Amino acid sequence: MDPLQRCVAQLARFPGVGERTATRLAYWLLRAPPAVAEEIAASMVELRRDIAECESCCDLVTSSPCSRCLDDSREAGMICVVEQPQDILAIERGGVFRGHYHVLHGSISPLDGVGPEQLRIGPLLTRVEKNEVLEVILATDPDVEGDTTALYVARLLQPLGVRVTRLAHGIPVGTEIEYADKLSLARALQNRREM
Amino acid sequence: MDPLQRCVAQLARFPGVGERTATRLAYWLLRAPPAVAEEIAASMVELRRDIAECESCCDLVTSSPCSRCLDDSREAGMICVVEQPQDILAIERGGVFRGHYHVLHGSISPLDGVGPEQLRIGPLLTRVEKNEVLEVILATDPDVEGDTTALYVARLLQPLGVRVTRLAHGIPVGTEIEYADKLSLARALQNRREM
Repeated sequence: MDPLQRCVAQLARFPGVGERTATRLAYWLLRAPPAVAEEIAASMVELRRDIAECESCCDLVTSSPCSRCLDDSREAGMICVVEQPQDILAIERGGVFRGHYHVLHGSISPLDGVGPEQLRIGPLLTRVEKNEVLEVILATDPDVEGDTTALYVARLLQPLGVRVTRLAHGIPVGTEIEYADKLSLARALQNRREM
Repeated sequence: MDPLQRCVAQLARFPGVGERTATRLAYWLLRAPPAVAEEIAASMVELRRDIAECESCCDLVTSSPCSRCLDDSREAGMICVVEQPQDILAIERGGVFRGHYHVLHGSISPLDGVGPEQLRIGPLLTRVEKNEVLEVILATDPDVEGDTTALYVARLLQPLGVRVTRLAHGIPVGTEIEYADKLSLARALQNRREM
């Protein structure tokens, strides 16, 4: 295959990038200075090489345990459980929560073939068992999958004697946490409910 | 900078890719098998390494002169001048033209800082001077920049005694007059033919 066709086919693997967009991007790379393709390519390879899951919170980080897990200034007894690493950034932007995080890497979604065993629920239970955790805040998305996941995780946590709460619906239903505005996120944290 | 932030910043260099899209693509890379990032990256580096301009037609190709320029079965005396390499593929799909091509790599656009000296007009004149060219078809886009470029190139070609033509513009075949855009309709009227 021609290097152009091959590059178009490779770029079209990105989600939301069709053949037409991939062609446009490939021709843009050909017109850009030679270093541009190399710089973008190197950043992708380094991303995959240097980033891995934190052994504690399962966030995608450069060192394990990650700096957030090692940060003593954070409230030790609080764990906020999110679906995706991006959700942490959104909650941090709100600036209200000062505890720790746990990333599930998805939500229970039988239609997409995602069951609880594919999520990082085991490491969360281990963290709660081994550490003095006072409260676990379930900050999964306010959709069917997120609610199902929260309920599932809550049932596993309750026997461990930890307080389990869920973000209040200050977040408009149907929005993904990643894209929620910071005021709604702050409200949602303040108004979290017992589960 | 964190490898994730760096990759997001790099992916956001692509035209039409904002920070939000770049973030989504970077996280997708992190979830995909490790080989995926490497394969996409390699195809980008190879694209830039293995593709260059043909010394004759200025198309972006793997060898120079390119296979199309060396193809004896093509009509030697016909050159179709296009703005971008992609335009060649579109015309080839039509299957009507069997001559040679010349890629200008843009159109004259003072607002974007593109003057005639940035286009591959010199190599086109050299081709017409050195070879027995009977006709040059100007197939630049039917917009202000394309028309300006066609006019500019035509004025340089006419002293060389070559026939210079422009693609006909009118109502697209299969379109109802009711739904034709007004620019195409205006052109179709101007270019009306005797029946």
